[in-house]
Amino acid sequence: MNWKPLCQILGFILIFLSFMMTLPVILLPGNDSGNWLSFVGSAGFCLTLGLALLLIGGRQTHRLRARDMFVLTSLAWFLIPLLSALPLLFNLQNLSLTDALFESVSGVTTTGSTVLSGLDHMPPDLLLWRSLMQWIGGVGIIGMAIAILPFLKVGGMRLFATESSEWGDKALPRTHTLARGLVLVYCGLTLIFALSYYALGMPFFAAVNHALTTVSTGGYSTSDASMGQFTALPLIFAATLFMMLGAMPFFLYVRAINGIWTPLWRDQQIHFFLLLLFVVATAITGYRLVQEDLDLLPTFAHALFNVTSVVTTTGYATTDYSLWGPAVIVLFFFLTFIGGCSGSTSGGMKIFRFQLCLRLFKLQILRLVHPNAVCTARYNRQPVDEDIIVSAVAFSFVFLLTLALVASLLAMTGLDALSSLSGAATALANVGPGLGDLIGPAGNFRMLSDPAKWVLMFAMILGRLELLTLFVVLSPAFWRD
Amino acid sequence: MNWKPLCQILGFILIFLSFMMTLPVILLPGNDSGNWLSFVGSAGFCLTLGLALLLIGGRQTHRLRARDMFVLTSLAWFLIPLLSALPLLFNLQNLSLTDALFESVSGVTTTGSTVLSGLDHMPPDLLLWRSLMQWIGGVGIIGMAIAILPFLKVGGMRLFATESSEWGDKALPRTHTLARGLVLVYCGLTLIFALSYYALGMPFFAAVNHALTTVSTGGYSTSDASMGQFTALPLIFAATLFMMLGAMPFFLYVRAINGIWTPLWRDQQIHFFLLLLFVVATAITGYRLVQEDLDLLPTFAHALFNVTSVVTTTGYATTDYSLWGPAVIVLFFFLTFIGGCSGSTSGGMKIFRFQLCLRLFKLQILRLVHPNAVCTARYNRQPVDEDIIVSAVAFSFVFLLTLALVASLLAMTGLDALSSLSGAATALANVGPGLGDLIGPAGNFRMLSDPAKWVLMFAMILGRLELLTLFVVLSPAFWRD
Repeated sequence: MNWKPLCQILGFILIFLSFMMTLPVILLPGNDSGNWLSFVGSAGFCLTLGLALLLIGGRQTHRLRARDMFVLTSLAWFLIPLLSALPLLFNLQNLSLTDALFESVSGVTTTGSTVLSGLDHMPPDLLLWRSLMQWIGGVGIIGMAIAILPFLKVGGMRLFATESSEWGDKALPRTHTLARGLVLVYCGLTLIFALSYYALGMPFFAAVNHALTTVSTGGYSTSDASMGQFTALPLIFAATLFMMLGAMPFFLYVRAINGIWTPLWRDQQIHFFLLLLFVVATAITGYRLVQEDLDLLPTFAHALFNVTSVVTTTGYATTDYSLWGPAVIVLFFFLTFIGGCSGSTSGGMKIFRFQLCLRLFKLQILRLVHPNAVCTARYNRQPVDEDIIVSAVAFSFVFLLTLALVASLLAMTGLDALSSLSGAATALANVGPGLGDLIGPAGNFRMLSDPAKWVLMFAMILGRLELLTLFVVLSPAFWRD
Repeated sequence: MNWKPLCQILGFILIFLSFMMTLPVILLPGNDSGNWLSFVGSAGFCLTLGLALLLIGGRQTHRLRARDMFVLTSLAWFLIPLLSALPLLFNLQNLSLTDALFESVSGVTTTGSTVLSGLDHMPPDLLLWRSLMQWIGGVGIIGMAIAILPFLKVGGMRLFATESSEWGDKALPRTHTLARGLVLVYCGLTLIFALSYYALGMPFFAAVNHALTTVSTGGYSTSDASMGQFTALPLIFAATLFMMLGAMPFFLYVRAINGIWTPLWRDQQIHFFLLLLFVVATAITGYRLVQEDLDLLPTFAHALFNVTSVVTTTGYATTDYSLWGPAVIVLFFFLTFIGGCSGSTSGGMKIFRFQLCLRLFKLQILRLVHPNAVCTARYNRQPVDEDIIVSAVAFSFVFLLTLALVASLLAMTGLDALSSLSGAATALANVGPGLGDLIGPAGNFRMLSDPAKWVLMFAMILGRLELLTLFVVLSPAFWRD
């Protein structure tokens, strides 16, 4: 293992993190919460650690191999939440180490499950730091999804391998251009979301925070009522649209701002994603209208918002949708797995894997009907290598097997069956709320036992690393030679 | 579509069924329930229908193609339960058509979910008919698993293709020998089970019934308390062993009685199956002993019995294991999917598919670690074609997708979330009991609404046909040309 380039990159990441930690102090100058010292102290600690890592890393430039990338990516997703917990730990006196880490892991992985309550009366610098953790996580996820995972060929991500994920010497300038484009799009969307939220009636501070946690499909809010604190339908529809935008492939936005719009309009992943949201929301609306005397528009708005929130793995809630009946609970349970599009800030199994699994199913049926015919699957108008389909399907199996293990572990801590099953799903898919009274949209993760919280933290990081990245690093074969 | 050979075979099946319908009258001569006329009437109706089909089929012999087999297999699994419901419908005055069909579908598919209560006071001829339905179903399943599914290459079953599943002219004598061997083993095991049960203290009538429903991993009992009516540990251990035997590959028994024992001892499917049962039962025993003050041996005996009952898809229960705590509920939920070995009377995803999925996972990890290495999966000391692995994994995905659909449909009938999820799983995997108060091991399916019962019936048949068989017949591509 060549540790020097790893130290270099982790050093840069920690210096970036230390800069981000000063933002709650810099951006809220009139704030008198008295927390500024702990933010500056945490930032100083991160900076020192980052500089030390840079020093160890040396000045020589190295080529990163796939091996290094696996370890680097895994390490980064453990290290960043660990350090991001510091400001929380220093500021909230009654917060245990477990709870502080849970909040930061849930934040950086953009899961959005929270152990904190009384958010409405929390000092604004702490609220902003929670939102910033998710925003930082979002940057990391997009970078990982576009530059690293396709290169590592994890779980069918080779489908999205472009020149920019080659990591050869020649491709580097192109990678830089793409990276600059992505940062631009990410910051641009954050700004647009914040201004729109403000224009539609959200207070300025809430607008900024929700913009940060919408673009990153994170789901942290400034109130215990989550998005339920806002009732205006235009705001709800805007938030729905923004969550959708946060869960669509970001590199297609970069191509669009470079004038190439066609791939964005014609992307089959986006089509399926939007179709799924509207079909499920319509079904839920119909189901509710049959049973209760409700108005069509608000019923549809809330159905679409909450379905979008779960599928995009954001995790906001406008209301306790688990009261909408057993059919809705079962639907939301399965929606929790799916996730948004690949190349976005969302988590879960991802739409394209679901589509590839369906392609394989169709292929299997066709081969049974016509045993001698040669059938090939196509995706986005291109033939797809069967290897990629197999990787995607294997990923889905591993996802569900891990889900079974995590749910069993949670249940062994004494958690009830529905909370265990949905808790495992919501953590692995980085969604946020589970189902049931305890951890459902109206619940809170604080009530869980410490062992359950540790299991969930590990599941969140595992899910964020698309499982296989971490499984590879943990496999004996990886370290053998 | 060439319907004549289909009529011939279905005709023979119905004549066999009509003979079986007379058994409750012939075998219970002293029985004064007054039901004999309805059994004889149902048998007469089946015989007439069977003879009519034979007449339509003509005397010419035909070669069956894969297409014919798909339709034949699907038709048979709808027709046999339909006709098997007749004796129930004629005898039980207060039984609705839906309930009668539910009981016969659950019987013939060897699921074992029941809508009947008061079994302890039911006329013996009706109890025997319920057991016989499962025994008939078991014969059909083994025949299908060994002769038809490998030929149809459904869901990775090509792995078990032998000369005997070639259906060429040359292979026919061999097929006949194998079929004779299987019938011998099936009847032999039934006899051994019945005598052992009787020797271990079960009343003679109960011993025969439980033998019929153990060998077929069906799970119908002669009491509302299921196997809970017997408390002697030797009997519980014997029933556990017999369920295991019913869920192991029957063609290996045929080879064993021909003197070839090695494949039986060295079969990796059997090893994994037994290991799984003992590991899970030990874990549950440990979990319970930590929490309560219990005796080791009975605790282990009941854990092993109920785990075996669910994994072999038999569905007996000695006690309401859903009271053993949330961890056990979550475990049983996932155990419901797995199923026994291929080539047995059990249902579910089957152990070998689970093993192939794990092989693929390992292969994926190895390929990520060593991108240029050539890795091949092996199963039972033979290299496995990647196509077979892909079919098996695709099957698992289809199974879980169908589960999601069935659970959503059940929830839409108003059923609670846990009952919907576990009800879908227990029907698709042909297990029997679900989880929760309503349909759990201490519950009964009678309380469900009629739409829920119809959904479950369809799921049971779908599961029994290994899903793809029916999906192929229902696909437009099948009927296009």
